[in-house]
Amino acid sequence: MGPEMRQLFDHYNSQCDTETEDVHKQKGPWIRLPSYNRSLKYATGGVYLSKMIQSKSRLFTRNIYQEGAAFEYVIFVNKEEQKSVCLFQAGHLLEGPPGHVHGGAIATMIDTITGTHVSFLSGLVVTANLNINYRSAIPLGSTVLLESTLDKSEGRKTFVNCKVTSSDGSKVHTDATALFVSINLSHLVGM
Amino acid sequence: MGPEMRQLFDHYNSQCDTETEDVHKQKGPWIRLPSYNRSLKYATGGVYLSKMIQSKSRLFTRNIYQEGAAFEYVIFVNKEEQKSVCLFQAGHLLEGPPGHVHGGAIATMIDTITGTHVSFLSGLVVTANLNINYRSAIPLGSTVLLESTLDKSEGRKTFVNCKVTSSDGSKVHTDATALFVSINLSHLVGM
Repeated sequence: MGPEMRQLFDHYNSQCDTETEDVHKQKGPWIRLPSYNRSLKYATGGVYLSKMIQSKSRLFTRNIYQEGAAFEYVIFVNKEEQKSVCLFQAGHLLEGPPGHVHGGAIATMIDTITGTHVSFLSGLVVTANLNINYRSAIPLGSTVLLESTLDKSEGRKTFVNCKVTSSDGSKVHTDATALFVSINLSHLVGM
Repeated sequence: MGPEMRQLFDHYNSQCDTETEDVHKQKGPWIRLPSYNRSLKYATGGVYLSKMIQSKSRLFTRNIYQEGAAFEYVIFVNKEEQKSVCLFQAGHLLEGPPGHVHGGAIATMIDTITGTHVSFLSGLVVTANLNINYRSAIPLGSTVLLESTLDKSEGRKTFVNCKVTSSDGSKVHTDATALFVSINLSHLVGM
């Protein structure tokens, strides 16, 4: 984790719920979401889940272990504002244009933060549409901020938008809209 | 390369230009595009190119060497029909929903095939917009076909569409439109 990433992390982490024995618990507006493997570890789901854990399949954004080389990120959710942020440090294995992050890697992080956000609000969903405008390239090695905001929900559909900015929010690199559709786990694994 | 991937590869490869000493050269409608590293090896570009080759940065879709684990693909361009196809075998490290390919990995391949296609037609470009409809999930391990078709060119803008289908073309997994904008290399590296 680079110093810029660490600073942002501390900023959001300090506003999170703290688990304490004190009667006057400090309740912050943000929740830090557990990472993929941690969620799986504590989840319940019988035979399918057991298969998933034993499978050699690996979440796309977590398939490279070398620190700082690929997708370094952490996600926070704001309960009241129905907003999520993702701090993302783009490693040197994500190259598209020379020295800059691949459009597909940016799409991957947009899908990840918006999908995680909507899952938090609506349970299990799949991506139905991503519409992404690439406005300025992201240099490899830099830390950017992704913000996912809820637009509306209609039945099984949830609409969100996502903005990718420089870490201080001053420069918009990318903006996008995303549509997710609620499904059952049985539907997915039976496909 | 799995048998399905091999069959598709042979299908397109057999229709490619053959380099032969024979006077009656067999000229096929397709060209197989060289892979990233091979292009770089034979390209010219002075100091920037030299920097790129020496850099530890790695093209996003080629950052995992383990065969069959991540992005296995090959791209063909049809000169007359201004169409490109990409054969893509999705490895187990590209997981999103359990047992299926991550939406971001699909976006990555769409960006790659459409971008390569447009570069072939118009020279150096960057992605300006991707609009992707996910219609049915792609199982990990399967081979799919991506087809990029030119819609129109307007000044520096080129519009293409892309369809992701099962290898026999019967099932549409994803469809998308993409917009690319022509740039100079100096513009990109000076950014």
